[in-house]
Amino acid sequence: MKDDSQTPPDSFHLEDFIPYRLAVLAKSVSTAFSKTYAERFGISIPQWRVIAATGREPGCTASSIAEHAAMDKVQVSRAVAKLMEMGLIKSQPDDNDRRNSVLSFTAEGQAIYDQIVPAGRAFEENLMSVMSDQDLTDLDRLLEKLTSQAKEL
Amino acid sequence: MKDDSQTPPDSFHLEDFIPYRLAVLAKSVSTAFSKTYAERFGISIPQWRVIAATGREPGCTASSIAEHAAMDKVQVSRAVAKLMEMGLIKSQPDDNDRRNSVLSFTAEGQAIYDQIVPAGRAFEENLMSVMSDQDLTDLDRLLEKLTSQAKEL
Repeated sequence: MKDDSQTPPDSFHLEDFIPYRLAVLAKSVSTAFSKTYAERFGISIPQWRVIAATGREPGCTASSIAEHAAMDKVQVSRAVAKLMEMGLIKSQPDDNDRRNSVLSFTAEGQAIYDQIVPAGRAFEENLMSVMSDQDLTDLDRLLEKLTSQAKEL
Repeated sequence: MKDDSQTPPDSFHLEDFIPYRLAVLAKSVSTAFSKTYAERFGISIPQWRVIAATGREPGCTASSIAEHAAMDKVQVSRAVAKLMEMGLIKSQPDDNDRRNSVLSFTAEGQAIYDQIVPAGRAFEENLMSVMSDQDLTDLDRLLEKLTSQAKEL
C-alpha cells in the first residue's frame, strides 16, 4: 500500500459535513450548558435530559423519553436507574402497559428541576445573545426545515 | 404535594429550548445517515465517527478524536477497541507520547471508508435538497456563530 493511500478522498471534508457540524455543535452546546448543573447537582448530560423530559411530561415512560430525547434506550435506562438511586425520580408500573414504567419526580427531583430550568433559560439567553432578531427567525426556520427533512430520510 | 406541583414551570418549553433542539436534530441526522452504513457494514454511529476522524487525519490519536468528534473518551475507546477487533483500524504507539496510540486504517478499513464517504455525500445532498442557496448561506453563518459562542460559554 502506498503512503498516500490513506489521504482522505478528494472533496470530503469532515469539518464541512453537515451531520458532523451539527453533532459537534449540539455536543458543545450540551457540554457548555452542563457546566451550570453537573458539578452543582452531580448530574450528567443524559440524566439532565431524563429530568427535562420528566419535567416536560410527568408520567412519561422511559421508552417515550428515548423516542423524543436525543438518546438511545440504553442511555435512558442507565440515566433513569441512576436518578432513582439518587432519589430524584420515582417509577411506577404503567397502568396502560405493565411492561412499562411511568416516571415522576420525587420532591427532591422537582426541586432540582426547578433550579436547573432558570439556569437553562439564562444559558440559552447567553448563547443567543450573539444573534440578531433576523438570525433568530432564520435559525428557527432552518432547524425546522432540517429536522423535518431528516425525518424523511 | 398537590397534583399540579409537577407541571413544568411557566415559560420553559423543552421543545423550544435551543440545546434540546440541536441535540434532537443532530441525533436524528446522525441516525438517518447511519442507515446507509450501519447494516451494510455492521458499524455503529460512534464507530463511524472514529472512522471519519481517522480518514480525516490518519495517524490521529484517540484523545484527539475525543476532542474533535462529538464523543466522550469512553465512547471513543469503546469504538476504537471494537474497530480493532473488526480489523478495520490498527493502532501503534505514538512516537511523540508513548502513553498514546496513533490510529490508521487497515486495507479493509480504508475500503469501507472509501465506500461510506460517497454515501455520506449523497446523504448530505438529500438532506440539503430542501434548502435554497440563501438558506445554505444562512445556515453556514448561524452554525458558525453558535459554535463559536458555545465555545465561549
